[in-house]
Amino acid sequence: MRFPTLIPALFLLAAPITAQQPSVTLMPMPASLTLTAARLALDTSFTVALPHVHDARLERAVTRAVRRLSMRIARPLPYQYALDTAATLIVDVAASGHAIPELDDDESYTLQVSDHRAVLTAPNVVGAIRGLETLLQLQAADASGLYFQGADIRDTPRFRWRGLLLDVSRHFEPVDVVKRTLDGMAMVKLNVLHWHLSDDQGFRVESRKEPRLQEFGSDGLYYTQDEIRDVVAYAADRGIRVMPEFDVPGHSSSWFVGYPELTVGSGPFSIARTWGTFVPTMDPTRESTYHFLDTVIGEISGLFPDKYWHVGGDEVDPKQWKTTATIQDYMRAHGLANEVALHTAFNRRLFEIVQKHGRIPVGWDEIFQPDLPTSAVIQSWRSSDALAASARAGFHGILSAPYYIDHMKTAADVYLADPIPVNTTLTPAQQALVLGGEACLWGEYVTPDLVDSRLWPRLAAVAERFWSPGSVTDVPDMYRRLAVTSHRLEEVGLRHEEHVARAVTWFAGDSSELFQRFIGYIRPRDFGGNGPNQMYPHTALVDAALPDPPAAAALMALARRAVQGDTAALGALQDRFAEMSGFQDRLAAVAVELPAARDGAMVAGLLRNIGVAGGMTVDALRHRDLAAAGWSTTADSLLRLAVPKAGGMRPVGADAVRVLLQSVR
Amino acid sequence: MRFPTLIPALFLLAAPITAQQPSVTLMPMPASLTLTAARLALDTSFTVALPHVHDARLERAVTRAVRRLSMRIARPLPYQYALDTAATLIVDVAASGHAIPELDDDESYTLQVSDHRAVLTAPNVVGAIRGLETLLQLQAADASGLYFQGADIRDTPRFRWRGLLLDVSRHFEPVDVVKRTLDGMAMVKLNVLHWHLSDDQGFRVESRKEPRLQEFGSDGLYYTQDEIRDVVAYAADRGIRVMPEFDVPGHSSSWFVGYPELTVGSGPFSIARTWGTFVPTMDPTRESTYHFLDTVIGEISGLFPDKYWHVGGDEVDPKQWKTTATIQDYMRAHGLANEVALHTAFNRRLFEIVQKHGRIPVGWDEIFQPDLPTSAVIQSWRSSDALAASARAGFHGILSAPYYIDHMKTAADVYLADPIPVNTTLTPAQQALVLGGEACLWGEYVTPDLVDSRLWPRLAAVAERFWSPGSVTDVPDMYRRLAVTSHRLEEVGLRHEEHVARAVTWFAGDSSELFQRFIGYIRPRDFGGNGPNQMYPHTALVDAALPDPPAAAALMALARRAVQGDTAALGALQDRFAEMSGFQDRLAAVAVELPAARDGAMVAGLLRNIGVAGGMTVDALRHRDLAAAGWSTTADSLLRLAVPKAGGMRPVGADAVRVLLQSVR
Repeated sequence: MRFPTLIPALFLLAAPITAQQPSVTLMPMPASLTLTAARLALDTSFTVALPHVHDARLERAVTRAVRRLSMRIARPLPYQYALDTAATLIVDVAASGHAIPELDDDESYTLQVSDHRAVLTAPNVVGAIRGLETLLQLQAADASGLYFQGADIRDTPRFRWRGLLLDVSRHFEPVDVVKRTLDGMAMVKLNVLHWHLSDDQGFRVESRKEPRLQEFGSDGLYYTQDEIRDVVAYAADRGIRVMPEFDVPGHSSSWFVGYPELTVGSGPFSIARTWGTFVPTMDPTRESTYHFLDTVIGEISGLFPDKYWHVGGDEVDPKQWKTTATIQDYMRAHGLANEVALHTAFNRRLFEIVQKHGRIPVGWDEIFQPDLPTSAVIQSWRSSDALAASARAGFHGILSAPYYIDHMKTAADVYLADPIPVNTTLTPAQQALVLGGEACLWGEYVTPDLVDSRLWPRLAAVAERFWSPGSVTDVPDMYRRLAVTSHRLEEVGLRHEEHVARAVTWFAGDSSELFQRFIGYIRPRDFGGNGPNQMYPHTALVDAALPDPPAAAALMALARRAVQGDTAALGALQDRFAEMSGFQDRLAAVAVELPAARDGAMVAGLLRNIGVAGGMTVDALRHRDLAAAGWSTTADSLLRLAVPKAGGMRPVGADAVRVLLQSVR
Repeated sequence: MRFPTLIPALFLLAAPITAQQPSVTLMPMPASLTLTAARLALDTSFTVALPHVHDARLERAVTRAVRRLSMRIARPLPYQYALDTAATLIVDVAASGHAIPELDDDESYTLQVSDHRAVLTAPNVVGAIRGLETLLQLQAADASGLYFQGADIRDTPRFRWRGLLLDVSRHFEPVDVVKRTLDGMAMVKLNVLHWHLSDDQGFRVESRKEPRLQEFGSDGLYYTQDEIRDVVAYAADRGIRVMPEFDVPGHSSSWFVGYPELTVGSGPFSIARTWGTFVPTMDPTRESTYHFLDTVIGEISGLFPDKYWHVGGDEVDPKQWKTTATIQDYMRAHGLANEVALHTAFNRRLFEIVQKHGRIPVGWDEIFQPDLPTSAVIQSWRSSDALAASARAGFHGILSAPYYIDHMKTAADVYLADPIPVNTTLTPAQQALVLGGEACLWGEYVTPDLVDSRLWPRLAAVAERFWSPGSVTDVPDMYRRLAVTSHRLEEVGLRHEEHVARAVTWFAGDSSELFQRFIGYIRPRDFGGNGPNQMYPHTALVDAALPDPPAAAALMALARRAVQGDTAALGALQDRFAEMSGFQDRLAAVAVELPAARDGAMVAGLLRNIGVAGGMTVDALRHRDLAAAGWSTTADSLLRLAVPKAGGMRPVGADAVRVLLQSVR
């Protein structure tokens, strides 16, 4: 699957596109794209023909697409069928395919946009769903109105498994958040929602057979069975699988609040409120544990038609197993050398249950042990090497280690990590075991008000990595297209672009504009954490900040242009550096009435160092003869002093100044 | 009720407040307020005592208040009870009062904030709910942190009925929109949601006894019975009554789609998609009509515990009754002289049904006719005179005519209209029949994405009119407090302040900032309509514009300062006028890639006239000796030319220029 797409990918970098490249705003990039000079007008005469397959899911997808086009032209665009020969858009699908998406669905499509019509063909409805998103990304406008860019596209994904893990245990996310996340995923052609539904901090699904799971383990924040079915159907309509995760035998404190007999030791147990790992662990030595799991998995798998079931299995704290006499006795009686072997024994029983209910087990790195049946899929959160090791042992695998987007990585960071790097040592057969990847958004610091800003637009960069040819790795071009994609994502109700303006209202008083500007130049550090427990409101400065503020890429783009002699870019940089230098004083001035201004004092000081170093460098670039001796040493020192040793935030822009500095030397 | 509050109101304008007035940001203003020099620190040691009544509704209200305070200090603030003597906040309530709010509930409270604690006392829980909102409005901040301003407040509303009509028929509004609207209403002490649930364009409630009402009449957009109960309970928790309206016998096309036998003439009937009045009307001559209404009112009144039931009764088109032989025969047989008499006969039957189900009927002006029983409440949408006429006839009344906030009036317009003007000719006994008022948001052009921007912050000004003493009429001070209140309203999830930034993304491309600035100076005309039917997406320029953009009040405030010799204000005005003059050219420059820029061309030209006139006037104020002869005639002409004759939008700022002009003459 992977290699054939490399040929169009090379083609992608060749002549027909380069000529027009500035206007390509597709994300993810298709396997093969030729832009043409054609333009198809978008006006109220828009009609659609569905000459072959005409099923309800396809009709809904077309209706959604037409509705979005209607909103763009601000006029009603009734969804009208037409004869093939008269239609503006022909969606020619050969077969319905699976109504509930599956791993091996053929998502390919072709799309030709000419002056008179757009023709979308696909072997299955799911391919048409992908192609409609591409068509919507081809819409542009000029003085004569809205139109679709002429194009000839043949597209198919590089990986079959392109997922997002959404942790709703540490902080609950309401159904409307999940739905708009699914809409965003569909726009960038992701196809798996990995729904992390239980953990120490909450059990989030209604069980009717064991209702104390949600009654005691969720603070009332859980999805009803009707809501689960609704979300699964919503995802299926968008060609997205929903794989549930119920993490066992560790990370399961919330189960024990209502059912203390599942673990050992003296209760009562309570929902975990802080972060990390916790001692209470399921007791793998009792038959009743497996009976309970069988009941719950039997019931809840009825809500999730996906063929995969995630069992978790990560970070099992062995302390309780080590110190419990009955468990140690059991291990001796069954010849289990250590707690890892006990975990594997538990997994063998668990897999039997999962498989009995018709599901394929998926688990985190830790479940990969010598005795594990290779029927399981390994999800690697530890490293790419861990993924490679399990592939060598014959396991299917999914890579997540580089894609922890709750960790405040830049879009470039996550973009450049490849599930199968160019220099892989895996054989082709082993590579074929790599199903794809998943971005992970763990929920320690992610409330419903923050979730969009923590996911988007970076998730679109990960989506391109999973869908597009591996040769598509131009970071500046990715940032250029990501800016457009970010705007477009708000069309389906996502709120990431308005996040900063909204979040500063908690603390900025009348200085909203100052804080918005300032926050444009800072990023949270590490996991961006504000608050060591589940009770924090997440309304502080660090919660308003973005993981990869657009100013970072903008500064870098300006620096690249400046070193190529673009004096306008140099002037723009000078303005930016002056602004960066000034926030420390401006924040101090408002601190008399805004206590929150002090939260930004440290990082404003670091930002000032970068701004001053940048200003010196721009001066030197302009007037090399006038530069004071040793200026570059000073600039270097300032940049080194701009790296935070503490505090929750760090400044952006140092890399752009370095690009300038290197050009002077 | 009204007169006693005038005494504290006069006190309000006296010494103790004037000294501190700039820091008063309460809205609505209390009946009596004395600010003091005390300050009560807000930190994580915050605790609450509820020494007497301790019921679940009060606890939920306190929990919500504590949660909002927690979000403001960005730290957990667990809701902790304390002994009276140790608590930060003592909420001392004498009785629970009605769990479901009623018209005659005593909403009064007193609030004292000293250096060591805040004491809130109230005869009923509902008064405490009002007082908690006042406490939250007393929170301020300075370099030492967050605190509550010292104050001594005795407060009670001027009117018992302080409502908002929300029309969810012409455009449906989801439950979450309704809930956040209720939260905003509670913040400004409104106490009635008048829920306009059926009209020609949609029937929005699930009936189980007559299910074709919603199945055929709603496009699937209706509230389930569970959702209705949920909203009613949510409102009751905030001290808000929910009065449903099912408009009959006109404005009822949506009923006839599923039940054509309710009207006359040949069906099939369809949901109305355009605006205005429609010919199909209920047949008041058939017993089956009353039987149907009895069934539906009997069922649905079970969902709405409020003692009032709104029957509509407005804009009945007599055409169908005039031209139907059976109806004309019936009128002759029953001695009904005309169609108005027939409507009244219908109302008498309808009122019997409403009263049988334990409800008091409310209707629009048109139901007020000689033979109507005075048990009904008249809601005046036509004029204040209509309200006075029905009061003279002994009817209770509610005023809405000046408060149609879907009509693009300014906050000042709606603020200065009084349900009982100072020069009223009503006797005290007739005045006592005026229960209060209701703002109306009719839904022709109001989608879920627009509703917040069309309601807020203007609704807060109406709320002050209904709650505060009639003597509180200082418009500049209202705008000053309204700006703060507008920010605060976003705390409960309202989205009006972010509306422009979000809405311009539909058409502004990379020129988002230009359009946001431009839209800051324009207002929709009249009803702000974009689109003659229900299918329009409302994503055009006029939909992004605000009914009363903050720049309008800001320009006026600057003009007032400038004519008093404030040269900084004059400088700020000059900058503003220059910006206003420039939008026409700036929009023309981007029109090559943004077709929507042309939508703003006409109003940008008008805005230029105002900017140029303003600039000339500022010049003349600065250098009277250098002003060209006849400049003021030219400025006058420009202002006259800035009044739109067509188009959907008009510019702001002409009134501010006039203030300047008059000072020069």
